[in-house]
Amino acid sequence: MGMKRTLFLSPHDITSIAETVGIDTLMDELIDRLHHAFIQFDSSKTQIPSRQGFSYSHPRLGLLEWMPILDVGSQMLMKMVGYHPQNPSVSGLPTILSTFSLYDVSTGELLAIVDGTLLTALRTGAASAVASRLMAKPESSSIGIVGCGAQAITQLHAMSRIFDVGLVRFYDIDNKTCKSFRRRCLFLDPSIDFIESPLEQIVEEVDIVCVATSIDVGAGPVFKEITTRPHLHINAVGSDFPGKIELPIELLNRSYVSPDCYEQAIKEGECQQLPITQIGKTLSQLLQDGTQTTLRPSNTVFDSTGWALEDYIATQLFLAHAHRLSIGQSLHSGSWNKDPKNPYEFLHSEMLNTSHRHTGVTE
Amino acid sequence: MGMKRTLFLSPHDITSIAETVGIDTLMDELIDRLHHAFIQFDSSKTQIPSRQGFSYSHPRLGLLEWMPILDVGSQMLMKMVGYHPQNPSVSGLPTILSTFSLYDVSTGELLAIVDGTLLTALRTGAASAVASRLMAKPESSSIGIVGCGAQAITQLHAMSRIFDVGLVRFYDIDNKTCKSFRRRCLFLDPSIDFIESPLEQIVEEVDIVCVATSIDVGAGPVFKEITTRPHLHINAVGSDFPGKIELPIELLNRSYVSPDCYEQAIKEGECQQLPITQIGKTLSQLLQDGTQTTLRPSNTVFDSTGWALEDYIATQLFLAHAHRLSIGQSLHSGSWNKDPKNPYEFLHSEMLNTSHRHTGVTE
Repeated sequence: MGMKRTLFLSPHDITSIAETVGIDTLMDELIDRLHHAFIQFDSSKTQIPSRQGFSYSHPRLGLLEWMPILDVGSQMLMKMVGYHPQNPSVSGLPTILSTFSLYDVSTGELLAIVDGTLLTALRTGAASAVASRLMAKPESSSIGIVGCGAQAITQLHAMSRIFDVGLVRFYDIDNKTCKSFRRRCLFLDPSIDFIESPLEQIVEEVDIVCVATSIDVGAGPVFKEITTRPHLHINAVGSDFPGKIELPIELLNRSYVSPDCYEQAIKEGECQQLPITQIGKTLSQLLQDGTQTTLRPSNTVFDSTGWALEDYIATQLFLAHAHRLSIGQSLHSGSWNKDPKNPYEFLHSEMLNTSHRHTGVTE
Repeated sequence: MGMKRTLFLSPHDITSIAETVGIDTLMDELIDRLHHAFIQFDSSKTQIPSRQGFSYSHPRLGLLEWMPILDVGSQMLMKMVGYHPQNPSVSGLPTILSTFSLYDVSTGELLAIVDGTLLTALRTGAASAVASRLMAKPESSSIGIVGCGAQAITQLHAMSRIFDVGLVRFYDIDNKTCKSFRRRCLFLDPSIDFIESPLEQIVEEVDIVCVATSIDVGAGPVFKEITTRPHLHINAVGSDFPGKIELPIELLNRSYVSPDCYEQAIKEGECQQLPITQIGKTLSQLLQDGTQTTLRPSNTVFDSTGWALEDYIATQLFLAHAHRLSIGQSLHSGSWNKDPKNPYEFLHSEMLNTSHRHTGVTE
């Protein structure tokens, strides 16, 4: 066998794909593919162990996690994701960085390495869109954004693709992040009104709230119990670590709470706060059951901890575009040996001429 | 922050390093570094969760595993390793393929991607060398090789670096693999005698046996109880999966069995066969205690399941040589954004001129 090739998609390649395809088309495709993947999900065909990772406070607060997924008989994806909330201020880097590695399960060969930072933001937005289309009022037009970091951009973008958004109320504890939010949303329809609002007013008045903060473990919830619209839907995105919660228990108590991934949500999501009997079906189960109408007009919460299935779908979408557009770099990887049982084969071309004769070895 | 860089070491780069440094020097350095790493190992400074993975029989028998390790406050290594015993015959690829990814724990940035196939074979050999120097008779001169695949080459190479090897007896169930073994060992001192031998004779007569087979789960042991030399030391390399064992229980019962990693060995190694009370100290503990002399002249077994610490040390060694020799490819990775909170920044250069004016947004 000759030299194997691995496709590498850098952040620049990912950007090129997004620019060429168009960010709206890409988000629409991703929402569509995720919707179908959730409907078709079958744990006997797609194995997704719970996320695990290392958490630490030295040298800075952080988390490095691995999220493996097996598409039985076909491919395995390993997502590595870092959560380092001090990155933006200290290093000028995003809070969430990520890399995806894709393997062929018939040989173990590395097929692709894909920068997962934009993909993670996109798929998190797309998952909220799938959930909101199922659970929120179809006429929802006002969106609340609580926490205006990187994830807020793709949350709002995703909402704008499935609802006729007229008003966005937004809040961030950091004044500078709040001030820059409008500018970071210039890609959206300029007719949408943006109003920086007190947190309480957002939760009280809008149709859909997307919460994605970096609140510390033990410091939540982000807001206290507030009267909301009877049909308020919340995409709870930021709660993804033991002890990190964003929503008040009173709000959860009167909401139908649907996790993306049950096992993760009870350890890391808003579902940490709930007795098991109070946790609803997963988004995938709801879509498979077709029970959406019965959820309205109650309060609903999508407890989004981030599921490897979403990453796998996002990876497949970007790889399809990369192949079609011939974007990406082909790396030498795998094995270069003619003899798979000889790890030192590289030594032999020079040695055969000298050693062969002395030892009298023939094949 | 500008574009981040990740060092990529391809199989060709790894080969270049091995050729330039010299395979003997590299093995000596690795044995030396591993020895010190085992002595200095402190589970509060180096966190090594048990290996996990996906195993499957479709489309072919295989295993894809992840082996994370955290060097607290510094770096994290994720090793991905595939075990696909039909690779050599079906795909011309090595049975064991591997990729290492190194992360900076202060930001989560990807520092390096290193092809781990040769490194895995090298570190497995080096670990056996560290164990054998501690447990085998110092005057050991005859080595038995049971299973003559890729791992056998580095096992024997490692033995040759710490013992004055005069005789190698070797056996493989596959006649072709057995026949090619001598040729694959031409890099060794030509004065060493190689004798293809019956399995029983090998175990009965040599000083040190290295066992590294692809025997099926449930099909072991590789050989039945045999009378051995009183000081025989065995490096048991191939047993690394639940139900996969290579050594007969009778031999284990009269041996001091030291695992590389206790938690893995009781699940996947020869230690699966033993009651907990019969399992010895780990290699790291033995080295820290300085108890080597008390082990001789009993039978000893190093139950080598493969430990992420070994991979981390091998990675550091190759990265040091790569930097010194300027070998490897610098990939664009991490984030390219000026604004870490704007995943769609790439859209704005073109949009600012058009949209900015219409919405009247100023910063």
